[in-house]
Amino acid sequence: MTFRATLDLLLLDWLQADALTARPRFAEHSADTFAAVLDLSERLAQDKFAPHNRRADTEEPHFDGERVHLPEATREAVQAHAEAGLRAAGQDAECGGMQLPYVVEAASRSFFMKASIGIDAYAMLTTANANLLMAHGTPAQRTAFAVPELDGRYTGTMCLSEPQAGSSLGDILTRAVPDGAGSDADPLGPRYRLQGHKMWISGGEHELSDNIVHLVLAKVPGADGRLPPGVKGISLFIVPRWLVDADGRLTGTRNDVALAGLNHKLGYRGTVNTLLNFGEGRYPVAGRAGAVGYRVGAEGDGLRCMFHMMNEARIQVGLGATMLGWAGYEAALDYARQRPQGRPAGPAGRDPATPPRPIIEHPDVRRMLLAQKAYAEGGLALGLYCARLVDDKATGDAAVASEAGALLELLTPVAKSWPSEWCQEANSLAIQVHGGYGYTRDFAVEQYWRDNRLNMIHEGTHGIQAQDLLGRKVRAEGGRALALWQARLQDTARRARAVVALQPMADALEDAAALVTAATQAAWRGDRPDVATHNAMGYLRGFGHTVVAWLWLDLATLASQRLEAGAGDAQLLQGQLAAARYFFVRELPQVGAWLAPVIDGDDQLATLDTDVL
Amino acid sequence: MTFRATLDLLLLDWLQADALTARPRFAEHSADTFAAVLDLSERLAQDKFAPHNRRADTEEPHFDGERVHLPEATREAVQAHAEAGLRAAGQDAECGGMQLPYVVEAASRSFFMKASIGIDAYAMLTTANANLLMAHGTPAQRTAFAVPELDGRYTGTMCLSEPQAGSSLGDILTRAVPDGAGSDADPLGPRYRLQGHKMWISGGEHELSDNIVHLVLAKVPGADGRLPPGVKGISLFIVPRWLVDADGRLTGTRNDVALAGLNHKLGYRGTVNTLLNFGEGRYPVAGRAGAVGYRVGAEGDGLRCMFHMMNEARIQVGLGATMLGWAGYEAALDYARQRPQGRPAGPAGRDPATPPRPIIEHPDVRRMLLAQKAYAEGGLALGLYCARLVDDKATGDAAVASEAGALLELLTPVAKSWPSEWCQEANSLAIQVHGGYGYTRDFAVEQYWRDNRLNMIHEGTHGIQAQDLLGRKVRAEGGRALALWQARLQDTARRARAVVALQPMADALEDAAALVTAATQAAWRGDRPDVATHNAMGYLRGFGHTVVAWLWLDLATLASQRLEAGAGDAQLLQGQLAAARYFFVRELPQVGAWLAPVIDGDDQLATLDTDVL
Repeated sequence: MTFRATLDLLLLDWLQADALTARPRFAEHSADTFAAVLDLSERLAQDKFAPHNRRADTEEPHFDGERVHLPEATREAVQAHAEAGLRAAGQDAECGGMQLPYVVEAASRSFFMKASIGIDAYAMLTTANANLLMAHGTPAQRTAFAVPELDGRYTGTMCLSEPQAGSSLGDILTRAVPDGAGSDADPLGPRYRLQGHKMWISGGEHELSDNIVHLVLAKVPGADGRLPPGVKGISLFIVPRWLVDADGRLTGTRNDVALAGLNHKLGYRGTVNTLLNFGEGRYPVAGRAGAVGYRVGAEGDGLRCMFHMMNEARIQVGLGATMLGWAGYEAALDYARQRPQGRPAGPAGRDPATPPRPIIEHPDVRRMLLAQKAYAEGGLALGLYCARLVDDKATGDAAVASEAGALLELLTPVAKSWPSEWCQEANSLAIQVHGGYGYTRDFAVEQYWRDNRLNMIHEGTHGIQAQDLLGRKVRAEGGRALALWQARLQDTARRARAVVALQPMADALEDAAALVTAATQAAWRGDRPDVATHNAMGYLRGFGHTVVAWLWLDLATLASQRLEAGAGDAQLLQGQLAAARYFFVRELPQVGAWLAPVIDGDDQLATLDTDVL
Repeated sequence: MTFRATLDLLLLDWLQADALTARPRFAEHSADTFAAVLDLSERLAQDKFAPHNRRADTEEPHFDGERVHLPEATREAVQAHAEAGLRAAGQDAECGGMQLPYVVEAASRSFFMKASIGIDAYAMLTTANANLLMAHGTPAQRTAFAVPELDGRYTGTMCLSEPQAGSSLGDILTRAVPDGAGSDADPLGPRYRLQGHKMWISGGEHELSDNIVHLVLAKVPGADGRLPPGVKGISLFIVPRWLVDADGRLTGTRNDVALAGLNHKLGYRGTVNTLLNFGEGRYPVAGRAGAVGYRVGAEGDGLRCMFHMMNEARIQVGLGATMLGWAGYEAALDYARQRPQGRPAGPAGRDPATPPRPIIEHPDVRRMLLAQKAYAEGGLALGLYCARLVDDKATGDAAVASEAGALLELLTPVAKSWPSEWCQEANSLAIQVHGGYGYTRDFAVEQYWRDNRLNMIHEGTHGIQAQDLLGRKVRAEGGRALALWQARLQDTARRARAVVALQPMADALEDAAALVTAATQAAWRGDRPDVATHNAMGYLRGFGHTVVAWLWLDLATLASQRLEAGAGDAQLLQGQLAAARYFFVRELPQVGAWLAPVIDGDDQLATLDTDVL
């Protein structure tokens, strides 16, 4: 099945994205305008991104002491994407945006991620950056920085981590001090000078755009000159690579932001990744060191502003992992259909003089293909479902928005982590289907596997997602989101039972959900956060597989109904039933083993004497 | 704990390698001579291999049109290893060998694999090649080819796969025809001319040695000029890169073997991997095309000769995967002890003004370290156990040898595949412990992860191992080996029950073994090989985890006894108990889910309509 056919099925038949056009914000849209955006995205991704994905890897960014060099194809792809208006896909029409639902924007993005995740990252980060400024910046900040990002002139970054502080943002050391007299009256916002080091900055230095808008987390020292401890002291600043005037025009003055070095990565090499020095005096402004930055939002409110975007950023990471899974699946499927090797087991294959058969006929190759489909399509369902929640939260009526908001908080750690883990596994299976050829750089799959390995690390590691889920999300509002999710799951199970063939799956799903409930209760039995989250990773894995099983059963129910009604592409629907069945037979049963240490309160990880390691 | 301490514990206390010195073949050895070999190996690996592992990756082999270039450090390391006599570690003393037990040879090899798997491969392949010739070659072939391999002058390769035939060796197309008049009377053996292409040949072309001895599988055409179908028509040939005279002296004449290209791999880049053209006429011999080859063994007996070495080759692949797992574990443990980040969950960590703590204090980091230890140490136990069986098969009395031989056949697919899968996972966890740093090439762990990905592919893919285990090994001799293994497992469980704390583990192990039995019976219920192996991969995974749980329980029992007796290094023994407990709580319970489709006879993989994929 083509990816597009699956995407359309999920987006339109399952999530009923066209129903969104009934809402005022999307009233100008229709199924046709959605389709046009997807057509455009598919074509652009195919023409401008996919052909250069390998080059973006092999011609890794390099710094000649003056400039960072990227392949010309990267610039052209990023530019073409921007010129098509896609950076502003979700923005208001009056700001030049397409005013599309987020779920359609995510569907559009999926084509570019599948074609080249490393090239797409420039566009993705820039849109995220601009969206943050549109939400939290002043009108002048929007005009000066966000608008040129959205229209393609500028690009943007997110500067959170530091060499000594990755997951623990409370420990950042970058400091921002008011920039002398008049700093309060700058038209671009309260003006500061920043000093510090920012690590893992994707898109931090290049020549793809006229300017780079860094969004930087830093702390403003107190009267004693010391930085406030913890995350409450963090503020957010716009630090442009090139300074602009009050009207947002480039002044030609370089800001004091310098490249300290490039990170040379295992994968995702198309995206330049940097260590940046802010304010070390390499490019003094007005005769002195310190990077000029304009505060966004209130002092101490930086993390809240940044995390406003975090759910969407995490959904996008999950979607990226998913699309790498899809890319590998497509490659493996194609290879398995072409490559002859071996003969069937049993009497039919006993004559060695018969020609070898395509490897797709071997059961274990089918297993590997079905697994990839179940992971990649399950990940897509999860990502789009969450994207649809973003729309419901933003544009649904009060009840819909409240419920969607709660579910989104709950499901975001899963949407980020589940594809990162399992679509990585899908990429490993794609290599395996190729045999020795998959281990060479002559085939695409090894790059997908390397690229995907990042996704369990960035935007909150796997461990952080587990802590977030078990430590916060399932307990928020007295467990409201968890109850809402279980209600939806039970509704799916109820509808599935109307299809005889799906009844055992409905039972299995409810059994798994009951284990999740038991694990949640067991973890919090003593109301001790330090004990509750000791086994958070087993919880995340069990929870994640249960969530994806729920979505698979929901899809299978719809597929069964449509097959029954003779509606839709029968092969596409049969494929969904096959993947759903695979997931229930071979994946979901692992949940019990993963949740058992949580349910049993196993304390080995908490009490281990690490000297014995 | 140091690797050496663990190795000594497994080799001496657990497997009682010194007891082998009571056998005539090893009578000249003692615990001291074993220790001396390990000391030497540890030092050489540390001095000559480890410092160059990264270089062997970054300075990938390249071909300038004339020669293949490798780092000089690779040549020096390979040479130092040979000069220490280690290539002939297992050979007879009268041939210049050390006449060491195989289990000690494997222990020696483990240091080099951990230090640089890509450099070690030249030595490993050469020894395997020479061992085959010592077992199956004529005296003249041994003298001319094996002896210079063992003493360090030559290197060797194994040429099995072809571009169109990887797993299905019966489909090879390389042909060998008698080399005209007098070809029967050549002192080096029946002389043929070979033509064909051989793919994935490690060490196929380089300047590390005076000659390269290719062992090549090819078919001799019948009277009708056609190649015999299937594996029964395969013969084995020695095809040297440079021709030698009857006394084995280099003649200066190049044989007709030409490099067609290098394979550019994802990992394992220190080992040059080639496509070789045999007999295309690039280097005509006596004026005509055709690579000169000398047959080893009888015509049609090639695969048997090659597979004589296959058990050992597969154990070595598993050991290599294990040692990559160890290398990653050591790196991750070191990093986790040094790297400060975050604070404890709960009240103790609530003050952000306190300094961050080393990440080893976080439960999820401990989980990742324990998992790596359980995988790497479990893999080592498995590899050494099988190596010990090689010794028992070769030098035990008739009853011991017979039982060891049967067990070795059964366990070899597990010894090859289990570490390939789980120590790969260990390497992924090693990256995860490092966070973003683990994703850069500034740290060693990403290379281990890339290197290890090969091990599920070469020397029989993961799928082939599963077929071998369920399709052949558990049924051989009416299930004799399976019964022998279960008896040993039950003996371990019985002894474990003498330690109160281990009783639940003994129960869990026997439950898992019962599931393996049930799965075996279910698979073969209809005596239909085509049906039996449809779910072979789930079987392999369930069987593998049960085997490793058995070994962990055996080690835990010994550790408990020694702790009770106050003997040995308490931290080392406590570490084993911790890893064993981890394995039983978080790994073994998955077996049920993996075996369920086998037990239930799920037929989805067999009956799938692949058009729906």
